[in-house]
Amino acid sequence: MASYPPAVARLIDALERLPSIGPRTAQRLALWLLAAPEQRMAGLAESIAHAAATVKLCLRCGFFSEAELCPLCADPRRDDELICVVGDARDLLAIEESGSYRGRYHVLGGVLSPMDGIGPQELNLAGLLERAAPPVREIILALNPTPEGDTTANYLARLLQPKGVRVTRPALGLPVGGDLDYADRVTIERALEGRREV
Amino acid sequence: MASYPPAVARLIDALERLPSIGPRTAQRLALWLLAAPEQRMAGLAESIAHAAATVKLCLRCGFFSEAELCPLCADPRRDDELICVVGDARDLLAIEESGSYRGRYHVLGGVLSPMDGIGPQELNLAGLLERAAPPVREIILALNPTPEGDTTANYLARLLQPKGVRVTRPALGLPVGGDLDYADRVTIERALEGRREV
Repeated sequence: MASYPPAVARLIDALERLPSIGPRTAQRLALWLLAAPEQRMAGLAESIAHAAATVKLCLRCGFFSEAELCPLCADPRRDDELICVVGDARDLLAIEESGSYRGRYHVLGGVLSPMDGIGPQELNLAGLLERAAPPVREIILALNPTPEGDTTANYLARLLQPKGVRVTRPALGLPVGGDLDYADRVTIERALEGRREV
Repeated sequence: MASYPPAVARLIDALERLPSIGPRTAQRLALWLLAAPEQRMAGLAESIAHAAATVKLCLRCGFFSEAELCPLCADPRRDDELICVVGDARDLLAIEESGSYRGRYHVLGGVLSPMDGIGPQELNLAGLLERAAPPVREIILALNPTPEGDTTANYLARLLQPKGVRVTRPALGLPVGGDLDYADRVTIERALEGRREV
């Protein structure tokens, strides 16, 4: 049976190793790149090099920044008593877009995941422990409600609680506009546990 | 409201322009690339450069090949009377994987799509017209049943019919294992039109 030449198979393989790229997308990307390899690759490489050269991580919170402190840390109008800990920059922007939070942030740069070789050393933790002091009164662990997010939250809670700050996590429950019929068993269980008086 | 620094936004934008990459995947890819830009970019660039340098298109059919003729064109056991025309290399491999075809192929390298600036000049057509001569007796236009695929098939049929070869297209109908209830109206219409005695 016919197949791709080895060099094309190897390229598809390399593309499949990118996050959220499955075998079908990897094939499409490989064919697209090979239709004009120099030009298409150069365009991508240029955008990456430009971003890598101009953007660094905020010294305080770990979010992307072009200055030492990111606009969120530099903004004097935000609430210094609250820190919201997130896994990555996307999670931070999702919370910002909700418009419901006015405190500071701390970006871990990942979550604990022994399978992927991500231990405490790989995360932006030292700065968080230093920040867990007055004026900070509460640290919200807004990590994804996944096994890795839960493990990371429990780990952080153990480190932070002795510091005398309040450590919280966002509520679990039914998504607004969602359908009970489509909710999984664990979500329903958590939603019932967390029920509130109307 | 916070957002990515301009250079990161530009990178996400460049990634979104890749085929089948949506905004969410582009964000994930950008964050992944920026976590180790030199190393991750170099790995990808190397795979693409290697494929571009070793792989060319088969002089006869246009499939990827490391030699002048691809293994499919060079194989003496395949049926020289049949040519199956496909849009790209993925479609060829999908047909090969079905194990139901033993003729030759011709890869167009795309389908007519004026919106994307793909006209007859952009496709591998000249070679196909030359090949439409004995021993070839039938040319199967295995283009996707989409508006672009249909347009391309009609265009090719008009060019090929005067050459005295039989020009066909695969049947349209219900997918095997599919469910009538989930089939769209047009598919059902085509399946009924193409009904056969049992």
